[in-house]
Amino acid sequence: MNRDALFWRIQDGKSPPPAAATTLGIFFRAVSPEDGAIEVEFDGKPEFTNHVGYIQGGFLAAMLDDTMGPALAATLDAGEFAVTLNLNVSFARPAKVGKLQGKGRILKRGKEVCFLAAELFQEGEMVAAATATAIIRRA
Amino acid sequence: MNRDALFWRIQDGKSPPPAAATTLGIFFRAVSPEDGAIEVEFDGKPEFTNHVGYIQGGFLAAMLDDTMGPALAATLDAGEFAVTLNLNVSFARPAKVGKLQGKGRILKRGKEVCFLAAELFQEGEMVAAATATAIIRRA
Repeated sequence: MNRDALFWRIQDGKSPPPAAATTLGIFFRAVSPEDGAIEVEFDGKPEFTNHVGYIQGGFLAAMLDDTMGPALAATLDAGEFAVTLNLNVSFARPAKVGKLQGKGRILKRGKEVCFLAAELFQEGEMVAAATATAIIRRA
Repeated sequence: MNRDALFWRIQDGKSPPPAAATTLGIFFRAVSPEDGAIEVEFDGKPEFTNHVGYIQGGFLAAMLDDTMGPALAATLDAGEFAVTLNLNVSFARPAKVGKLQGKGRILKRGKEVCFLAAELFQEGEMVAAATATAIIRRA
């Protein structure tokens, strides 16, 4: 954990948060870089809904991506960044407009290649789960 | 192809488009339900960007979901709807703010279970590709 790395600069208010994270209404509940784990909350907004009023699956995928990405980003050094190569999402049940909780973790932290996993919950029920492959690059 | 099905009612201006599609700035370039194929365009907005100014991968996933979903929706009967069960996205290159073109198709159209695929392009280059599994339900 390097407090000069971008993730922590954002947490410390020294750098602005990414626009995508703001759009998804992200809020960090707990970050444990030593465990590679993270808990976040998102805002399932009306503008993310499909024709029956549920959150469109793609926006749940965006939330899961934005759960796993920060789990890894919290462990990076200054000058390092992570790129998602692959994202695989399973949709378990519909999500309605409102808050969603994301729980993410690093399954394997390689020097370059990393495997990540996350689940998204609403009112205590799992609505979607994902795995991702990411690669660490140096700027 | 049933003009009373929701997809075509939206195309004909008889039902409002889903909010998620509007948020992604969707525009239908070509729909060929007989071939199970579709071409759409999206608006990669500044509010979808990550900390380096590229479109966050999750929002590309949302666009791919909203390419494959309509490809299948265009073939449904009135009263039928499709639910995405699984979405698998590979990210080939960064996408910047601006227009993106989606090309989607039905790989296999079962009575219930369907397999879909799509790619997302920017300035002629493929930025991401996806497959999805969907299931058709009757209301």
